[in-house]
Amino acid sequence: MMESFRIMELSKGPRVRFSPFYERSVEAGIRVATVYNRTVLPVSTDDPKADYEALTERVAIWDVGCQRQVQVHGPDALKLCRYMSARDLSQLKVGVAKYAPLCDHEGRLINDPVVLRVDEETIWFSISDSDILLWARAIAGEGNFDVEITEPDVSPLAVQGPMAAALIAQVFGDWTRELKFFHFRRITHEGIPIVICRSGWSKQGGFELFLEDSAKGADLWDLIWNAGKNFGIRPGGPNNVERMENFLFSWGSDADLECDPFQCAIGQYVDLGVEHDFIGKEALIAKRVEGPTRELKGLLIDGEPLEANPAPVGLQNPNGTYAGETRIICYSHKFQRNLGLGVIEVPNNLPGTKLKVETKDGWRPATVADLPFDL
Amino acid sequence: MMESFRIMELSKGPRVRFSPFYERSVEAGIRVATVYNRTVLPVSTDDPKADYEALTERVAIWDVGCQRQVQVHGPDALKLCRYMSARDLSQLKVGVAKYAPLCDHEGRLINDPVVLRVDEETIWFSISDSDILLWARAIAGEGNFDVEITEPDVSPLAVQGPMAAALIAQVFGDWTRELKFFHFRRITHEGIPIVICRSGWSKQGGFELFLEDSAKGADLWDLIWNAGKNFGIRPGGPNNVERMENFLFSWGSDADLECDPFQCAIGQYVDLGVEHDFIGKEALIAKRVEGPTRELKGLLIDGEPLEANPAPVGLQNPNGTYAGETRIICYSHKFQRNLGLGVIEVPNNLPGTKLKVETKDGWRPATVADLPFDL
Repeated sequence: MMESFRIMELSKGPRVRFSPFYERSVEAGIRVATVYNRTVLPVSTDDPKADYEALTERVAIWDVGCQRQVQVHGPDALKLCRYMSARDLSQLKVGVAKYAPLCDHEGRLINDPVVLRVDEETIWFSISDSDILLWARAIAGEGNFDVEITEPDVSPLAVQGPMAAALIAQVFGDWTRELKFFHFRRITHEGIPIVICRSGWSKQGGFELFLEDSAKGADLWDLIWNAGKNFGIRPGGPNNVERMENFLFSWGSDADLECDPFQCAIGQYVDLGVEHDFIGKEALIAKRVEGPTRELKGLLIDGEPLEANPAPVGLQNPNGTYAGETRIICYSHKFQRNLGLGVIEVPNNLPGTKLKVETKDGWRPATVADLPFDL
Repeated sequence: MMESFRIMELSKGPRVRFSPFYERSVEAGIRVATVYNRTVLPVSTDDPKADYEALTERVAIWDVGCQRQVQVHGPDALKLCRYMSARDLSQLKVGVAKYAPLCDHEGRLINDPVVLRVDEETIWFSISDSDILLWARAIAGEGNFDVEITEPDVSPLAVQGPMAAALIAQVFGDWTRELKFFHFRRITHEGIPIVICRSGWSKQGGFELFLEDSAKGADLWDLIWNAGKNFGIRPGGPNNVERMENFLFSWGSDADLECDPFQCAIGQYVDLGVEHDFIGKEALIAKRVEGPTRELKGLLIDGEPLEANPAPVGLQNPNGTYAGETRIICYSHKFQRNLGLGVIEVPNNLPGTKLKVETKDGWRPATVADLPFDL
């Protein structure tokens, strides 16, 4: 059961936005939400296990309108994006997306967007939960890059699961079956402008539909929803159980804001060997040489199923000394055991290390594991 | 009656923070909230008129822990802050605060913090609702400023109203009566570290208590609350009615993100005559020469009391052509009429211009007014 609590009423004001899919999500049964990029993000229905089953066995539809786009447009678009990204984007072609860690000058990971090259001079950072619009404007302004940086009217809708490809082909045509992973096409379908990308925050396969007209949110939802009934479609949200079972990193959740990409277990996406300069390069090279003092690792936690625990709690050596902190804990349906993600101090980060974890029911034994989990 | 709606449950996760005063606010009767700087911001009880009366006739206590501090520390602290601020901070002395618009390189207003010089090499930006931590790190990193930029453990608690000074003097001593407007002192009182500043987002007078240890939120709240009972203290939140009656600008509400400080009616805080360079200076000089194309103005709206309407709606000339948009509407208890704030196109921005405003009950006549309202 996803832990949540009923807060006071949310003021209908300028501080929190609602995506074009919000009303339909609620009608379809979403009951728990959070706020992400100042936008309500539906998280789960009142039956998270059924959400998980739809995602892993059939198909799930998620409102991820909160995954905002930062559009960089102009002659220097690629140049700026290369400077902002710790991953080499030099070869990014139109119609292709790449997952790219962004760091600050100290090498701290500040966001991990999917970067889409929409056309020669237009790039979208499809961002996680930090204000990259402001960051990009600062960098472009200080460096006199010839670009315009905006947040366009683009709201992603995720369609994920083993039957997602069949559903999407039924709605948009068989050409979608040929779309490679992280490739996209910009189309208008029944008057709805969308970028269809084979991507999404699960390992079940699927698509993200980047709606380019917020007035058509209900139209797009209904298209997918109605065709999806035959596939047993269900509403959901970015699913912590599935993504922990298969390890997809969640910025702002899995590590604190001081961690670098190596500490966040996404170091493989950092290209230190490029000739061009990028923000944080010098700091990241130094960190690489020094080696990490702590690292995001998996945790196998003993005992009865734990409620999801998405808040940092203590992690100790058996003798009671500090060993780090867990960032999130959940019960895995697939592996029928409790999994955790923790930022663990060296040398306790070695797989097999025995630690103990604070839970609501007291301390429990835990074993460090590599990511992704290999169970 | 503040318009609001019960959303789904809020997920207890890493995305939304709770201030050290949150529990006490709820216990004291707060029922409506929003999210500000990724932190829950209590807005009102279930009786907003009583909240208003406490603020304007007695004393109110508000959890503004969401008003985060961006701390700039190091040899270049003042230099960086001068470069980031459109208001001249060169003469900012230790123990003194200033309200300072921050702009980007295009002259767009990106935040309007109160800036506190805590010591020679430490400055706090007490920010409104945008990620100035990220912005400041970008600017400092690109410009090689010798500073460290962090978000310290500091959570403001507001005590506002005509009896605030008497209450604060009773709790902390008579020396607080001598504290000038926007001056502060850093103290430890009964083991609670606080910066006491004569400031706050109302025109009723009062203080902001910047708690420097989040473990002591309930202690500080209880100190004020218990002493406040004799003064008829009541919980509340940043009050839209009072602040519109007296015009205090609300960043992120009253204008869109493309507006400059002149368009936002806070142009008097921009110092274009300084010798040093600051971000946006060139763009702001050009805008000053060209003159605004639209401007934030007051609106006097005819008819029965309107419910608070904190979302942009249409503003038309009597002939139906576009004239701008209202940003917020409320019913003023003091003036017993409906007030609005709107971003209005030139030349409709002249006081006395007759327009019409879209409301739930249809279009209503409205008259443009200067800010602050002079009624």
